[in-house]
Amino acid sequence: MIRVGIIGYGYWGPHIARNFHAADDCEVSVICDKSPAAQGRIQRAYPGVRATCDVSEVLSSPQIDAVAVITPVWTHFELAKAALENGKHVFVEKPFTSTVAQAEQLIELAAKKHLTIMVDHTFLFTGAVKKIEQLTKDGTLGKLYYYDSTRVNLGLFQHDVNVIWDLAPHDLSIMDHLVHSKPEYLAATGQSHLNGHQDVAYITVYLSDNVIAHFNVNWLSPVKVRTTLLGGEKKMVVWNDLDADEKIKVYDKGVDIKSQQGVYELLVSYRTGDMWAPKVEQTEALAAEIGYFIDCITRDEVPFNDGLAGLRVVKLLEAADRSLADMGAAVRL
Amino acid sequence: MIRVGIIGYGYWGPHIARNFHAADDCEVSVICDKSPAAQGRIQRAYPGVRATCDVSEVLSSPQIDAVAVITPVWTHFELAKAALENGKHVFVEKPFTSTVAQAEQLIELAAKKHLTIMVDHTFLFTGAVKKIEQLTKDGTLGKLYYYDSTRVNLGLFQHDVNVIWDLAPHDLSIMDHLVHSKPEYLAATGQSHLNGHQDVAYITVYLSDNVIAHFNVNWLSPVKVRTTLLGGEKKMVVWNDLDADEKIKVYDKGVDIKSQQGVYELLVSYRTGDMWAPKVEQTEALAAEIGYFIDCITRDEVPFNDGLAGLRVVKLLEAADRSLADMGAAVRL
Amino acid sequence: MIRVGIIGYGYWGPHIARNFHAADDCEVSVICDKSPAAQGRIQRAYPGVRATCDVSEVLSSPQIDAVAVITPVWTHFELAKAALENGKHVFVEKPFTSTVAQAEQLIELAAKKHLTIMVDHTFLFTGAVKKIEQLTKDGTLGKLYYYDSTRVNLGLFQHDVNVIWDLAPHDLSIMDHLVHSKPEYLAATGQSHLNGHQDVAYITVYLSDNVIAHFNVNWLSPVKVRTTLLGGEKKMVVWNDLDADEKIKVYDKGVDIKSQQGVYELLVSYRTGDMWAPKVEQTEALAAEIGYFIDCITRDEVPFNDGLAGLRVVKLLEAADRSLADMGAAVRL
Amino acid sequence: MIRVGIIGYGYWGPHIARNFHAADDCEVSVICDKSPAAQGRIQRAYPGVRATCDVSEVLSSPQIDAVAVITPVWTHFELAKAALENGKHVFVEKPFTSTVAQAEQLIELAAKKHLTIMVDHTFLFTGAVKKIEQLTKDGTLGKLYYYDSTRVNLGLFQHDVNVIWDLAPHDLSIMDHLVHSKPEYLAATGQSHLNGHQDVAYITVYLSDNVIAHFNVNWLSPVKVRTTLLGGEKKMVVWNDLDADEKIKVYDKGVDIKSQQGVYELLVSYRTGDMWAPKVEQTEALAAEIGYFIDCITRDEVPFNDGLAGLRVVKLLEAADRSLADMGAAVRL
Repeated sequence: MIRVGIIGYGYWGPHIARNFHAADDCEVSVICDKSPAAQGRIQRAYPGVRATCDVSEVLSSPQIDAVAVITPVWTHFELAKAALENGKHVFVEKPFTSTVAQAEQLIELAAKKHLTIMVDHTFLFTGAVKKIEQLTKDGTLGKLYYYDSTRVNLGLFQHDVNVIWDLAPHDLSIMDHLVHSKPEYLAATGQSHLNGHQDVAYITVYLSDNVIAHFNVNWLSPVKVRTTLLGGEKKMVVWNDLDADEKIKVYDKGVDIKSQQGVYELLVSYRTGDMWAPKVEQTEALAAEIGYFIDCITRDEVPFNDGLAGLRVVKLLEAADRSLADMGAAVRL
Repeated sequence: MIRVGIIGYGYWGPHIARNFHAADDCEVSVICDKSPAAQGRIQRAYPGVRATCDVSEVLSSPQIDAVAVITPVWTHFELAKAALENGKHVFVEKPFTSTVAQAEQLIELAAKKHLTIMVDHTFLFTGAVKKIEQLTKDGTLGKLYYYDSTRVNLGLFQHDVNVIWDLAPHDLSIMDHLVHSKPEYLAATGQSHLNGHQDVAYITVYLSDNVIAHFNVNWLSPVKVRTTLLGGEKKMVVWNDLDADEKIKVYDKGVDIKSQQGVYELLVSYRTGDMWAPKVEQTEALAAEIGYFIDCITRDEVPFNDGLAGLRVVKLLEAADRSLADMGAAVRL
Repeated sequence: MIRVGIIGYGYWGPHIARNFHAADDCEVSVICDKSPAAQGRIQRAYPGVRATCDVSEVLSSPQIDAVAVITPVWTHFELAKAALENGKHVFVEKPFTSTVAQAEQLIELAAKKHLTIMVDHTFLFTGAVKKIEQLTKDGTLGKLYYYDSTRVNLGLFQHDVNVIWDLAPHDLSIMDHLVHSKPEYLAATGQSHLNGHQDVAYITVYLSDNVIAHFNVNWLSPVKVRTTLLGGEKKMVVWNDLDADEKIKVYDKGVDIKSQQGVYELLVSYRTGDMWAPKVEQTEALAAEIGYFIDCITRDEVPFNDGLAGLRVVKLLEAADRSLADMGAAVRL
Repeated sequence: MIRVGIIGYGYWGPHIARNFHAADDCEVSVICDKSPAAQGRIQRAYPGVRATCDVSEVLSSPQIDAVAVITPVWTHFELAKAALENGKHVFVEKPFTSTVAQAEQLIELAAKKHLTIMVDHTFLFTGAVKKIEQLTKDGTLGKLYYYDSTRVNLGLFQHDVNVIWDLAPHDLSIMDHLVHSKPEYLAATGQSHLNGHQDVAYITVYLSDNVIAHFNVNWLSPVKVRTTLLGGEKKMVVWNDLDADEKIKVYDKGVDIKSQQGVYELLVSYRTGDMWAPKVEQTEALAAEIGYFIDCITRDEVPFNDGLAGLRVVKLLEAADRSLADMGAAVRL
């Protein structure tokens, strides 16, 4: 039985709390939020769980085995560090930390204490990502050419981070999980219009093996788009996360270049075959992720979305900020 | 009566020929293509028009007032230059030329000879672009925040140019026409996978007034997408050129930032109102453009899609190639 | 404070319970379901509410002012009758009753006892129906020509009723609410394939003023469709209830017939103008309906979705069964 | 070499003429239309073909082997009869004739004279219908449950026929081709609003083997819909003819009823698997049909879309008119 304390009960915290509450082999002992309104909501939802405004009741309680840090990113480091120092496993909201240095320090600390860090890269537990993972692993797509993601909507403005730190962690963690070529350079462009933070931004990542990845994130779009294309040598995938029934479409389409006999005799043949929309598992991703967190602790296993996975994403975010400041000049990763 | 000679009868030439043939106050005198098969097609389609393989029959014939150059981009300069030197008006396929220097030379030559240059930026004559132009001009959108275009499909590989020179001239010329802020910097990224030319590419243009524009062009997409978003302070537009009935949607959506009293008190309010899909004129853009070419010659007017418009697009293309070679580093325009 | 007892905690009951629980001026006193599993769910969800398997604890308790009957249709009459006889207001799941005679008896009984009957025609409280109601009332659509609804999906088979009694009450109650012409004849066709009840069916209703209505209901469709067209003389509406953002589209389209001078000179002109998707209110329909039930009781008002509204729908359903048995022969209403 | 005369050069005639003109082993000798404007268009399009206003030049010319009758339906019988009597094969626009009696007379006459009748059921030659035909023939769909078609738009009003005779022949001929159960009863409802002919109509056909077919045709719809669903025991098909890329979707969805032990123990299991959009051939249907007409004449073969196929459709249309007049009462076929 893992006893869990949760810090942060704003937008995402209630989802985390609900799933820890429903998970097997796990008990939510205390939920902390400094807002009195949030504490009222905690008490109404979970009469048997202690609600507090004092973070030390979570961080230092001997009754708690694991801490979930569901707070703004600039607080992750201090909270996770204190939790680890007190011998607690940590589940940290994405992005993992504000800087690469912080992430490295937490990873080192957890290793020394033999504790688990899991970063909340929820999308990795969706049926859609699991299906695409299978299609890339079993060779269906063939060699990958590109990964192209768009995540735009009329968004919740954040006052402490730009649109890249808000939206791109989802897609960067998915790319990190699905694409096994190594990121080599990153170039980012963007513009701010309202509150000094970029609200429209574009990231290109150059990876090994000639793979290119691109991310379009935007808080000022009148329409919601959540679409990712993966172009492979053999097949191509369109993942539309807003399509309730056919999230993933696999196209038997491609281009073959046969030979090249002089500039005018390039023999290109286009392949256009069937399209196939495989059934995608419908279970709640967050429930699966939290069950996996409990399992990893119980079985002493290292999760795939561990501190190192979190660090890889923070490296890309840090590089994006540097490239943004230089209007798109590539940053070596 | 303007007598026209057409050079090039490949993919686009027949459309140009058909529209010149149908235009008022205009007569197609000769069509030139070096391919015997193309000559056969010309003769069958236009028994009364001379078909030739000899370009000089077009360029130097005293019977011809205007020449349409519908050939690969690397040939535009020599052909247009010869036509202008022989006192003929020219209609040139996009992109105007291969280099900025070539474009400037043709513009100077036409000015000296008092001849008309029109660059075939066909999209400017579509009902969709005309409707968006009206919405920007009459203040419906308010101050522009961003212009974001995607033009991808499983494309015809070009052996002489990359995907930017093939697809982006459409969108760059539309942006040039619709957005009146001044392009200041351009950053481009991309990758080639098959024949040494980039087949996937991304361009960011930083314009004055904090406007940002972005272009996603791709020859390796399994699905065809032709979508442009324009985000304005008052309203936002989604132009889906593949939607037969509702190409343009105007969203009464936006974000207002009222004031900012400390980091936690940013007052953001979201506005979500009706959507409106104005009727878009359905006439053939190319017919309108060619009629306009004849009119400009006849009335001695300067077309808005003149050599200077072509030059502005070529400047962006040339900058894109330089930025591409430097993995996204911004090029000052 | 209205004290409510709920009978039935299967598929729909929990939604009803949640909304009565959250409503103002209302208290859920007891929930009855004969299934022990359902009773367990009731206790976990509402520790302060009595769970029982004995329907008489609801029907005859002096502590209860109103009863919600959320059970299969064949039980509605007996339960509602007992509740009314015991002086309780009733909220009855749709369809109101199994027969016209039952509906009439309940209406008479409620009138005699001066009690409120509300039939759960939830859709009438959606933003979409309220918006269409406004468009019909304010004359935007002009004279109505037709009402055409499709409600199909891979459906939950009912073992006691056919697809008409399961799905059509939604659409028949919406038509009853929106269309003010009088139903005169009904013709229904259909077929059963699996369990002896029709799983595919079609209903045509002939109304006064030359209005025609049609309903396509199907439990065997691989795709979910929830679309209604209303064709008016001035404007036409497409309501796609599955479109998250643009449920209602109003088309400025139509046909004008100017005159008819001989068989070849019919002057028809087509009108094609803008499309407009008005913003639709997003509040939960069931919450609004239940608040309205409480209000009607408190203020002693007759709800528009009263027993008579329920009766009008049951009349159509009964006629549909008679017409179905006669392979589409029209039944006079 | 089959020498063809074409009667009628209105909306559809030019398509027929173009395809006969382009077909192998075939020569268009004369095209007849009484409108001087149409004759002008004929001469411009086909300088080598004789244009006439005199139908006898087509019907009685010894230079002609086959006649294409592309005129309003009320003229088909007289023209086709004269052509057959003069020993010419006939290609007749759909619907074949105005009455069953006329169709039977033409079939008898053609049989006596050993001449070919082909009725222009163009859709049978589309890639989509051919693909569905394959899926039904090879058992992919399993036993058929229903066929449900919708063909609506803001339509060209006909002054001589109702919407059923205008639009339904397409779908009735497709059903006739794809569904091998026998039509037994037909029920039709509809309403007229503008010119005395039904502009909105619905047809149900009861076929043997418990198959039901339904047709929704409407000239007053603001949106264009061309969708057909086929529900089978094993798989279900959605054919959206307006989807450029994925016209046909095959769903591995269904319902299995295992057994039925009392009213509450009906064991229904839903099957939801992958969706698959097979590649559909893109060739022009009319070109294939006209090539087939020439082949059938040349090889003395009976086309599958012969007079009998035309007759089967006219029988359904005639029954629809009778049922319409009786507000949906079923007509035995």
